[in-house]
Amino acid sequence: MQNEQSLIQRISRIAMPNPQSSSAGAVRLGMGDDAALFRPRTGYETILTCDWFLEGTHFLRKKHPPEAVGWKCLARALSDIAAMGGAPRCFLLSLALPESHAGRWLDRFLGGLRRASRRFQCALAGGDTTRNRKILINVTVIGESRAGQAALRTGARAGDFIYVSGRLGEAAFGLQMLRGSKGLVKTSTPQLKKHLYPEPRLALGSWLTKNRIVTAMMDLSDGLSSDLPRLCDASGVGARLEAARIPMLPNENARSGRGGGANTMHLALHGGDDYELLFTVPRRSVDRIPGSFQGVRLTAIGEITRNRQLRLIRKDGAEEPLIPGGWDPFR
Amino acid sequence: MQNEQSLIQRISRIAMPNPQSSSAGAVRLGMGDDAALFRPRTGYETILTCDWFLEGTHFLRKKHPPEAVGWKCLARALSDIAAMGGAPRCFLLSLALPESHAGRWLDRFLGGLRRASRRFQCALAGGDTTRNRKILINVTVIGESRAGQAALRTGARAGDFIYVSGRLGEAAFGLQMLRGSKGLVKTSTPQLKKHLYPEPRLALGSWLTKNRIVTAMMDLSDGLSSDLPRLCDASGVGARLEAARIPMLPNENARSGRGGGANTMHLALHGGDDYELLFTVPRRSVDRIPGSFQGVRLTAIGEITRNRQLRLIRKDGAEEPLIPGGWDPFR
Repeated sequence: MQNEQSLIQRISRIAMPNPQSSSAGAVRLGMGDDAALFRPRTGYETILTCDWFLEGTHFLRKKHPPEAVGWKCLARALSDIAAMGGAPRCFLLSLALPESHAGRWLDRFLGGLRRASRRFQCALAGGDTTRNRKILINVTVIGESRAGQAALRTGARAGDFIYVSGRLGEAAFGLQMLRGSKGLVKTSTPQLKKHLYPEPRLALGSWLTKNRIVTAMMDLSDGLSSDLPRLCDASGVGARLEAARIPMLPNENARSGRGGGANTMHLALHGGDDYELLFTVPRRSVDRIPGSFQGVRLTAIGEITRNRQLRLIRKDGAEEPLIPGGWDPFR
Repeated sequence: MQNEQSLIQRISRIAMPNPQSSSAGAVRLGMGDDAALFRPRTGYETILTCDWFLEGTHFLRKKHPPEAVGWKCLARALSDIAAMGGAPRCFLLSLALPESHAGRWLDRFLGGLRRASRRFQCALAGGDTTRNRKILINVTVIGESRAGQAALRTGARAGDFIYVSGRLGEAAFGLQMLRGSKGLVKTSTPQLKKHLYPEPRLALGSWLTKNRIVTAMMDLSDGLSSDLPRLCDASGVGARLEAARIPMLPNENARSGRGGGANTMHLALHGGDDYELLFTVPRRSVDRIPGSFQGVRLTAIGEITRNRQLRLIRKDGAEEPLIPGGWDPFR
């Protein structure tokens, strides 16, 4: 049987060597003390975000590979940093595990987490561990952005174009495939990969913010129909979406896949976990938006309206209200 | 039934009005966006710490008043800030609740949390909520201390005196009383109060650090016999404790109380949850330590040794090894 101290030592091994620990924007003191110390950069604000990742709610012990759990618990918290246009600096990992998962499962989990940590240059700075029957994860990410420059949800104005990155509904489709499969899965399709190993759009968020192109931005975690109303609400505006413009999987993909019969329009509107960026751009800046950024498509899908309603123009031209149907743990 | 958005609105009501939100060391953007924004002070480092507070492990739904759960989940995370000698700035609350507890229980929980937040000047900046069968809490606290000035665990040197604040074993005694009682309890004794509403030693930690009196410091959360070895290990030293000097409850207190027959020496050595400070002071600075600080006793209980063993001198003068017997979720 191992004690908490040895568990902490195993976890702390994934912390990155910190060659610039005396420089700004770096972890000055990592795991092993009462708290971590972070040295902020002059002229920057600190971005703070935390995210639950719970067995049974956000992942399934018997379906999700431990590596994917490790990657995704950090990646989804990083998506909030991307949504502010910031750069990640470090993170805290709170982990509660059953004794049975403190061996091989933990090693594989830490492997996935380490990969995400290195890939997105976000160093493990500290955390807390305890024992629990179910696997509980909470990740806090600390990021930075130049003072006053972070992208908020509040700046959208009537007439702004609404954009999304990537293709919507892919992760939800991947989840359907996962649910339909037997036992632990491997990454076999792009949709499954998007569900298991999402890529926070950090470079895109940073580029849009630095160049002051966006008036409002957020990440899509609960589904477009749930998240867009939040952006509109924060900005005091409404929106009109054009269904035909929303980038999504071709329908034959869904019909032929193991997800079986999924309606790709439904997935694109209501599916969660895409971690794409949703942002608004004033008309005068629209020509500064490229068709794609580092291989990720950028698509105008509608327009912000003064009228605070949310409307969807269907492919047949008929208009209907956009009803939130995305992920909400309390619904 | 309520949704996540309305839950977040209720929680966000406990956020403090932020009159100085444009000034340094303050929350510039609180709940309601993808992440919070914090404006660090120039010349300061950021202190980061997070803490689990789980039903069944750290508190009992049927025994602990919701107000105490709210107070304590923040207070114990703040104790880590005290241990670094820092000042708290803001916190993130991650909360997972059963539907049944999203009403009255949540209100009372938020009441206790708000009291602690105001008392210790630590503003709610953000968080994450979800639904779960058990009540899960994780708190991240962000603090600050002057660059290079934070008290670490690593600086203890042979010959330093070992000090503790307050009286040890009181909280563990309070827990015994709680366990022996029927149903939800009220705060009826100082020991119960110490268990339910611990006071992080922020002013003391800050004073000791500012005046550069301590060589090493940490907070006592798992019990002296578990925590002192961690400080010694980090500093590469040993320690000799004198049992007779350890401040604890008088034994008749324990015998007469509902805790029934508790050995106060055992509680003082191994009882957790005291959130007192453990710190080391070079001999030459010992006369700068007052007998008490703001009503909290400060007591020298032993000495740091070059020899890396941990020894306890019993009241009868015999010496024995100090064996960790405190709280460890993995033991």
